[in-house]
Formats: sequence, structure tokens, C-alpha cells
Amino acid sequence: MSIDTPLTALLGIRQPILLAPMDVVAGARLVTAVSAAGGLGILGGGYGDRPWLEQETAKLRKSTTPFGIGFITWSMAKQPEVLDVALAAQPRAIMLSFGDPKPFGPRIKQAGARLICQVQDEEMAQDALDAGADVLVAQGTEAGGHGASRTTLDVVPAIVDLAAGRVPVVAAGGIADGRGLAAMLMLGASGVLLGTRFYASQEAEIADEAKRRVCAAKSGETVRGIVFDLSRNNVWPAPFNGRCLVNDHVQRWTGREVELLQNVKKVAADYAEAKARGDFDVAAVIAGEAVGLIHDVPPAAEIVDRITLEAEQILRGRRNSVLNPAQAPAPA
Amino acid sequence: MSIDTPLTALLGIRQPILLAPMDVVAGARLVTAVSAAGGLGILGGGYGDRPWLEQETAKLRKSTTPFGIGFITWSMAKQPEVLDVALAAQPRAIMLSFGDPKPFGPRIKQAGARLICQVQDEEMAQDALDAGADVLVAQGTEAGGHGASRTTLDVVPAIVDLAAGRVPVVAAGGIADGRGLAAMLMLGASGVLLGTRFYASQEAEIADEAKRRVCAAKSGETVRGIVFDLSRNNVWPAPFNGRCLVNDHVQRWTGREVELLQNVKKVAADYAEAKARGDFDVAAVIAGEAVGLIHDVPPAAEIVDRITLEAEQILRGRRNSVLNPAQAPAPA
Repeated sequence: MSIDTPLTALLGIRQPILLAPMDVVAGARLVTAVSAAGGLGILGGGYGDRPWLEQETAKLRKSTTPFGIGFITWSMAKQPEVLDVALAAQPRAIMLSFGDPKPFGPRIKQAGARLICQVQDEEMAQDALDAGADVLVAQGTEAGGHGASRTTLDVVPAIVDLAAGRVPVVAAGGIADGRGLAAMLMLGASGVLLGTRFYASQEAEIADEAKRRVCAAKSGETVRGIVFDLSRNNVWPAPFNGRCLVNDHVQRWTGREVELLQNVKKVAADYAEAKARGDFDVAAVIAGEAVGLIHDVPPAAEIVDRITLEAEQILRGRRNSVLNPAQAPAPA
Repeated sequence: MSIDTPLTALLGIRQPILLAPMDVVAGARLVTAVSAAGGLGILGGGYGDRPWLEQETAKLRKSTTPFGIGFITWSMAKQPEVLDVALAAQPRAIMLSFGDPKPFGPRIKQAGARLICQVQDEEMAQDALDAGADVLVAQGTEAGGHGASRTTLDVVPAIVDLAAGRVPVVAAGGIADGRGLAAMLMLGASGVLLGTRFYASQEAEIADEAKRRVCAAKSGETVRGIVFDLSRNNVWPAPFNGRCLVNDHVQRWTGREVELLQNVKKVAADYAEAKARGDFDVAAVIAGEAVGLIHDVPPAAEIVDRITLEAEQILRGRRNSVLNPAQAPAPA
């Protein structure tokens, strides 16, 4: 069974599901699992840690399925040689998020890779198209980790209208099941990009306790803000901030960001120490609003299978049950 | 053509589209137009202005189509006799939003009306079910006017799961076209409730200049906050605040709410004066994130027709184009 869209045709994949390139969490093992299941695994190149990137791409070079490699654009721009490391692994696509993709578009496309750009509004989408983007990921504020303020339901149709069929649009933020995939297809998206759902997979490179907390969290128990970035001395350019599970640390400092900055040396030291010992009452569990839909830690392939099966059932069932059969035309 | 769902069956309507009971803006004229087109018009009883309610229900009593009447629950609770005025008009349904519906559930149902409760989280949804709600409206933060913080994509599946098929769930917030209706059906909703889209209709009881500004606004040009409530001495109980178009007044005071309160007498006087003369650089244009999808001011019936036609086309087209035909089972 497969769901065919312009995205699957363009990338040569079987299912319209992309793995969000979660920094370090989306390692070669998770990437390979998602790609083998028919989606596109995208390596979490993140800020651009060269040794890590060389280690993980070495594993991916043996892959028989397509994969992508993702970067935080503004960080990668400080050390653009990591893009060469990525391209040397012959990825099907490079995904750039959070920053100007223009300086990198030509190199990526000359290397034969597709350019996937994640955007949060129309202006960024236009810049991405000007940079030669082959795919736009429209990311809503529901997403875990870094993002901006507009919601998925708002930003996806807006970017679909702007793209006007020239490139496929992928929806990101708040999606973790087949209902979400089917809904995004209705909005005109050609697929979805999932972070939090794959964070709680067996292959994700993150502590079991963090995965357990994602499963335990209920919908509404995440928050977007700058407390965690401040606490690790890693403040991002506007308009980006980060969504994580609500924990003791975020409750302590939200609304007191100025005071945090005044005490940042001690807070950052305590934060780093807590993170090192896996204390997630302090350290961030990076997760989106879809946590309420996530209750287990299956293999990534099972996640892809479940979501596509549920979406297919909904898409198929809906036609027969919703449209008044007495008035609907005969099936094609 | 019609889209049949548990909602349309329960309410005896042809299309799964409900008019949000926008305070005063949704008068008898707009209610009648939406109901005549096959949806359910719901009168904007709002805070409970008895003379206005008597005047508008007098018009609705002649209606040959079903209609509803909506109230702001915490405000109506201060003068519960207005509920008798509403019930005397024999509405198909009473819609209660923002407050505890329990004290009113029995009277509404004994009068033979359905109880529609708008909720913003699972706890409110459970309270509404305990109050005897026949329909739950799951409202996301994208909505115009009063609401809370969780997004439509987050809250709709959460409430659908909680309702577990016992009552139909209606999605509200950020929806203004057939794509949005189709997407919400995929999430398990049985229909949609639209405010902003009908605000920009010919029959809406609001200044033409306000409608013009909704058409001109782009996606992302609304904001949720308490500036407007503060400015009219009308602060709501937590967790509710209001979404409006960004204008000069909201830009001036957002982030300076304490200062506004310190000067509230003058600000409120200036605000009331600006509102009286129709100055929407100061007075609020109450609108949701769907403004980017709204570009004209048609008759309400045309809105209902457009949305249902577009949704039907998407629902029908999607099955044939998305699912791999070589692998899909034969049509039922």
C-alpha cells in the first residue's frame, strides 16, 4: 500500500512521510529505519558538528534507500565546509531550516541533491523558492524544538497558495498520526514531516527517560519560549524560539527571562550539569504539541506503517461515508 | 449536494457548517441566511442584551429553518432569565461558550433544544459532557474573538478522542474554506464552526470598513491578547483572551498592559469614542487567523455553497488521486 503525491514522485519514496532532522537525535540508525519503511529519513546535522557528521554519513553511504541530511542554516553558514561532507555522502536531498538558503542552493543542486527548505511564513517561502527550493516544508508553531509563532492550520494553506503547484509543500508541526497526515493532504500539502513522533521511536538517539516523558505528557503540556536557549547560552536569531515539554526548569524561569540572563553563568552551569546526568526535570525534552497523540516507543518502521495505514483508511472511508451517496457521481 | 455527518443528522441540517454566534454581529439576518443555505445559523446572544435578544428572536420565530442561539456562559449566568427569552423562540440548539454549562443543561434540554458547548481543552469538554452536551465545539487559538491558547490541530483530535463517538465534535478556529472543512473531517470532526468567514459576509451586522479590513489583512496579521478587553473595561476570566486584527491601538499597548491599566480611565474613554466613530485604527476588528483566506464579502449563502463544494471536490478527488490505484481495493 502507498500514498502517492507529488512529493513521493519527486523524492522517489513510497510514503509521504519525512523524518525531521532533529539535531543529533536523528542519527543514521533512525534515518535508515524511516527510509527503509518507505519515507525519507533526514539526518539531524543540526548546528554542524563535523566529526559526528562524518561518523553518521559513513554509515549512510552504505544505504540502499534514499536519505536526506538537514542543517540549521544560520549555524551551518559559519562553517560551510560541513555541507561538502554532507554532499559527499550523496544524499537524495539537503534540508535547510532557519536562515537564508540562497548561498547554498547552487552547490546543493549542482551536486545532484534536491533542496528542501523549511519555512515559517510567506516571506521565507519566497526566499526559499528564489534559492531554488524543490520542496517547501511549512512549519507551524505546534512543532517541537525551534520554530516560530504561526499555526500549522494557518501556515500550510498560505504556503500551498504561494507555491501554487510549482513545488510540493510538506506540513510540519502537531502531526503524529494518520488523521494528521490525511488532514494535511486535504489542505493541499503533499506530505508531512514528523519530529516528536520519531523522537519516541526505538532508533532515536536520546535517553529512554526523555522518550518516556514524551509518552507520559498530555496534549497541552508543551511550551514555546526562550528559557532553554538562554539556559544553554544558545540564543537564536528572531523570530525563532523553542518548544519543549513543560518541566520544573521552564516553570521556574518562564516570565523571568531577564532575571535568568542576569544569573546566566550559574544557571547555564547547573543546566549543563543536569543535562549531563540526564535530569529532565531541568534539561529540555524537546517535543511538540503532538505529544498527546504519542503513547509508545515503537520501531520507526512501525510508526510509518501505522500512520500511512490509518491515513489510507480515513481517506478511503471518508469518501463513501461522508458524501451523500444518492447524489455523488459514480466512482471513477 | 450535501456532506452528511453525525452532526448534520443530529441537528437536521444539510451541510456541516455552523455560524459562530458572534456577539451582535451574528444577528437574525445572518442566522437566517446561513440556515437557509443548509448550515446552522446561531444567533450572537453574547453577553445577554435582553432588548436586542427579544428583537432578533422575534424575527427568528418566523423562520422555517432550524437555528441556534449562543451565549457567553459566564455573562449569561448573571441574568439567566435571558435564557428563557432564547428558549421561547424554540431554537434547534443553544450554544454555550466560556464558562460552566452545568446550571443550564437541564433547562435547555427540557425545552427540547440541543446543547452545543464550545470548549478549549479536555477538562472543559468533560464538564460539558457532564452537563449533557449534545455537541462539542473544539475551539483552537486560531479563532477570532475570545478563546484560549491551544491550536485547532492540537485540540480537535484531543476532544474527538475524549468524546469517543458519544457526541459529534465540531472544529473551530482558523477555518474559512473547503480545504479546512475537509481537513477537519479527516481529524474526526463532524463539522466546522466559522466566525471570521461570516463576519466578512453581506449579512453580518458590522461596519463595512471592518469587513474591508478583514479582506485586506494577510495571514499572520492577527494577535491574541488582552489589550482590547482592558481598553473597554471588560476583562474576562482566565484562560480566555481575544484575537483581533493588529492595528495601531494593539501595537501601541501590547507588552504595556500594566501601563494601560494604570491609565485605563482615559484609554477606555478614547477607545469608546473611537469605536463610536468607526475608527478601526483604534477599535478592534475581531478576526481570526483565517483572515488570509478571506478576500471578499459575499452573501452568506454563497460562503456555505463555496465551502461545501470545495470540500466535496477535495474529498472526492483525493481518493482517486492519492491512493495508489494499483493497490487500492475496488470502490465500494
